[in-house]
Parts: sequence; C-alpha cells; structure tokens
Amino acid sequence: MNAIGVDVGGTKIAAGVVTSEGKVLNRVRYPTSASPQRLLANIVRAITEVGDRFEVGGVCLSVPGLILSEENRVVYSPNLHSVEGIPLKEEIEPRIGLSLTVENDANAAVWGEFKFGSRRGVQHLVMVTLGTGIGGGVITHGVLMRGAQGAGGELGHVTVHATGPRCACGNRGCLEAVASGSAIGRRAREVASEHPDSALGELAMERKVLGEDVTRLANEGDAAAIQVLKETGRWLGIGLAGFVNVFNPEVVAVGGSAINAGEFLLEPARKEVRLRARPPSRDLVEVKGATLGPDSGMLGAAALARDPKTGEYILES
Amino acid sequence: MNAIGVDVGGTKIAAGVVTSEGKVLNRVRYPTSASPQRLLANIVRAITEVGDRFEVGGVCLSVPGLILSEENRVVYSPNLHSVEGIPLKEEIEPRIGLSLTVENDANAAVWGEFKFGSRRGVQHLVMVTLGTGIGGGVITHGVLMRGAQGAGGELGHVTVHATGPRCACGNRGCLEAVASGSAIGRRAREVASEHPDSALGELAMERKVLGEDVTRLANEGDAAAIQVLKETGRWLGIGLAGFVNVFNPEVVAVGGSAINAGEFLLEPARKEVRLRARPPSRDLVEVKGATLGPDSGMLGAAALARDPKTGEYILES
Repeated sequence: MNAIGVDVGGTKIAAGVVTSEGKVLNRVRYPTSASPQRLLANIVRAITEVGDRFEVGGVCLSVPGLILSEENRVVYSPNLHSVEGIPLKEEIEPRIGLSLTVENDANAAVWGEFKFGSRRGVQHLVMVTLGTGIGGGVITHGVLMRGAQGAGGELGHVTVHATGPRCACGNRGCLEAVASGSAIGRRAREVASEHPDSALGELAMERKVLGEDVTRLANEGDAAAIQVLKETGRWLGIGLAGFVNVFNPEVVAVGGSAINAGEFLLEPARKEVRLRARPPSRDLVEVKGATLGPDSGMLGAAALARDPKTGEYILES
Repeated sequence: MNAIGVDVGGTKIAAGVVTSEGKVLNRVRYPTSASPQRLLANIVRAITEVGDRFEVGGVCLSVPGLILSEENRVVYSPNLHSVEGIPLKEEIEPRIGLSLTVENDANAAVWGEFKFGSRRGVQHLVMVTLGTGIGGGVITHGVLMRGAQGAGGELGHVTVHATGPRCACGNRGCLEAVASGSAIGRRAREVASEHPDSALGELAMERKVLGEDVTRLANEGDAAAIQVLKETGRWLGIGLAGFVNVFNPEVVAVGGSAINAGEFLLEPARKEVRLRARPPSRDLVEVKGATLGPDSGMLGAAALARDPKTGEYILES
C-alpha cells in the first residue's frame, strides 16, 4: 500500500504518493499561504490531486515548528503562522476521505533518511538540517526520538558558546546562532568589512550578503567566503561532537539548504568531531551530507503515515 | 527471582541482593584494588558472600568508564585501571555459578532511578551524576539509550563554552570542565584568592580546597562558597537546558557526590533551564536531586541483570 507525504513549508506545499520502497509515483506542488483557509484549501487540493488514481492508505503532513504529534496539532510555527492552532486532522480528513497525521519537519526528514537514505541499515542516526535555523531529528535503537511531548530533537538549541551571539530563540550561543544559514550570512557581513577587496567584500558594498551568496563565492574561489564557511563548519563540528558523545550514532547526516556548501562546511566539522568527540564513538561515526535532498521531508512524512486501525506505519505493513 | 547488583567503584565494591521491588535483602562491601587479580577475587568474594542463602537469577556489575556492554568488556576506566581489558564475564562466571553482565555505572544509575526512584512512572528521564567528572544516562521512550556501541550518554562531554576551561578529556569547555565536583574545587580556589577574608579564603591559605569543602562552608553561610556553588549551578543549568531541548524529558535527576550541595546548585540550574530551554519541554521538565543516593548503582545494576536464556531483565520476569 502507498502513502501520501506532504511537506508543508514556508514557501511551498509538496505532496507525493510514495511506495514502501520510497519511490515517488506522483507529485504536485502548491504555494503556501498566510491565510489559514487558503492554506488548508491548498493542502486538500494537493492531496486530492496527487492521490487521484492511486491506492493510498493514509497521509502525513510534515510541518515546521512545534508539533504535538499525539494530538496532530501545531503549537507554533515561526515561519508558517497560518498553520498554528488549526485542528488539521479534523479539518482535512473529511475533505480527503483518508486518515491524516501531523509530524515535525525535522522528524520527518530524519525518518526519510533512515528509511530511504543511502545508509538505511543503521539503527542510530542523528540528522541536523541547516537552513535559516537549525532543525534536528534523532533515531536511536531504530526508534524516532520524540520525547515526552513530541518536542524532542531540538538540536539547534543546545548552548555551545555560553557567551556567544544572540540566537533567534532569545538565548546566547545556541548551535543555531553560530552554525545556521543565518549565522553564515551574519558572519559573512563581518568578514566582508574586514576584507573589502574580496569578492565577498565587494558584494557586501552592493547589497545584503546571504548565506547562499557565500557558498557561490566560495565555489568561485573567494578566500574570504571560504574562511566564513570554514569557521562555520568548525562551530557545526563543536555541536556535532557533543551529539556524537551523547548518542553514539553510526551516522550524522547534515541536510538543509546550507549544506549546498558541502565540504566547505563538512571537512572542518569532521576535524572538530575528531578533536572533541571521544572514542569509540568518534571512530565509529560517519559525518556526511544527507542523501535525499529536498524530497526528504515528503518521503519521511509518507513513511510516518499510519494505518488508522492498527496505528502501524502504512509503508511497513 | 532476585538479582545481584555490584557497584564496582574507585574506592569500594558494594554488592547487594535486590528484589523485583527494589528491596535490598542483603549487602556487603569490599575494597577495590589496583591489582587486577585481587580486584577479581574481591568481586567474586562479594558476590558469593552476599548471595549465599538467597535465590538469585544472575548478576550485573556496574563499572565506571567506557563499557562495550554487548561484549561485557571495559575498554577504559580512568579511575579503575585494574579492571581494563579483563574478560570479566569469562573470569567471574565459572567462579560464582551465575550468569554475569557488565554495564556502565551511569547507565546503571539512571536505570536504578528509572526503576526504583520516586518518579518511576516516567518514560523519559535524563540523569547527570556530578562527581570528580560528570556522568550521564538517558532513558527515552522507556528504553536505556546505549547508542550503537553502548558508549552513548556521555553527557559530561558536550561543549557548553567553546572557549572555556580545559577538560580532563583534553577539550575546552565541556560541561564536565565547568560543572563537576572538580570544577567546583578549581573555581573555589580562584574565588578564595579574590576573597581572602572569607571562610573559603582562609581555608585556601591552609590547604587545597576541595568540592566538598565548598558545600560545607556554603551550609555554614560563607558568601564566597555560596557564590562558587551558584556559578557552578548556572553552568550546570546551561548544560541541562540543552538536554531538555534535545530529549524533552519528564525528569532531569542530578546525582553524584557533589549533589550534597543540593539547592545551592539546583536552584540556579533550574533558573537557567527556564531561561534557555524552550516550551513546552521547559514547562514540563522537573529538575531535581536523584532520589536513590549511593545505592542507585547497585540497584540499577541488579535491575539490568539478565536471564542468560531469554535475555530478559531478571527483575522484570
């Protein structure tokens, strides 16, 4: 039996019909909306359209923010306020004729990587997604670690530098404050002013430098941009080293848009993990880019869709 | 059926016959030894003596250091070198006529707290033990989180202050480097020199100040000693806040000898957790002293003893 995974993001709704082997049989995209009613309508339209003419056992939505997954409720979602507080299951199910559950996007992404990624045999997997913020998901002993309320896995909000820069969450020195896409942009603007003759410095004279600019300039060989990514990669590695000591995972997968910077970030991160993590965890772990790319949320959501009668994951039954 | 738990520590071997309700029917103590042969002999003697005249299904040793629990092997143990590399199971089993397994001491302590502590209904429990170093153990979804090699739960070695003091593990700014009993002693010696007229300052003139001195002086009302514990409690809280965000636990239990300082440490730690952890995890979690005290390792070890045929925990069958 197939399942539908729906990645509800800040800019788009991506829905797909997924087989138990992780093959996407059909996919559609709709825009998100700041209007709760239009957002709901687009989610319903995406599911109805994509699932038409396929045998489907159920649907799961992957949504950014704090989700109480037992209640299928989004408590808050900083980048998608229109979804907050809506009784998604109750609103959508009658309009699609299928059972529906709701999961956190980082949990869906790590589950997708676990089920369909290149290292699907592992039982202990940590995933960190670098975007505007930092999301996290953890598989331990083959189980998605949700915590008591489904709010676990907030890997972006561990303090790695108590006196460090202010984080969007209000604290100082969270991993997100020093290693996210936003942190890359902020650090790039500082380095640009120190190196006004670099390509980074010249761009900063014209307009606000963003994280993606830094990756592009690094690929073109700009030393200042490379320096920014290297520093950020070290901070990332300081955080990952802690996760390696805590979880003793086989794989740490780094995903999200900022991982387009690839080895510019991963190589210094690995170096820091080798320095800071302890044996034998340090020697076992493989730190690598996520293998599923932008589909991971949709695939993971599909794999988390449940049979309403048994509660089992549809793609496993 | 009862099980024997043996807490093999840096100074003593404490063995007890434990019932499935966590009652200790009999207990003995033997000294540890720097000689591997004498250490083995004392462990065997403790087990034989304590188990005499009781029905016992098996034995588990709780040992500090890095344990590969699948192999019942101690890879290294900084405070008990004599136990390193000895094939404990193979050496001891034939001499006691009972099956034997080996576990990490912090894992045994958290399991004891989970099974027999005051909040035994919880399914998500983080335990941090403050001694010379900082140990950790995590229960998530009712399962002891061992990681891929049984080396997980090293909560003392997450970086909380990247530019902070050097840790015994070689890194900078680990939680252990700023919030352990040793860290209390080190910070106390600094504060003593800033406040030579305090009771702490006067003691530091006579001899080296230790962590336990600070607790005693704080209880006697010395402001300098209280300041040291308050600062350490804040660092502890910075680490705990990260664990709260990562694990979304119902309870964080703080044990180990340094927790004799009680609310001097816990009150500032809770304040930092409230500041740094995110809702709803922040609002759910209870940060408290461990309830089992020095018996937690022995009780947890007994609860981790397994039936050699079924692999099940003896005290649960």
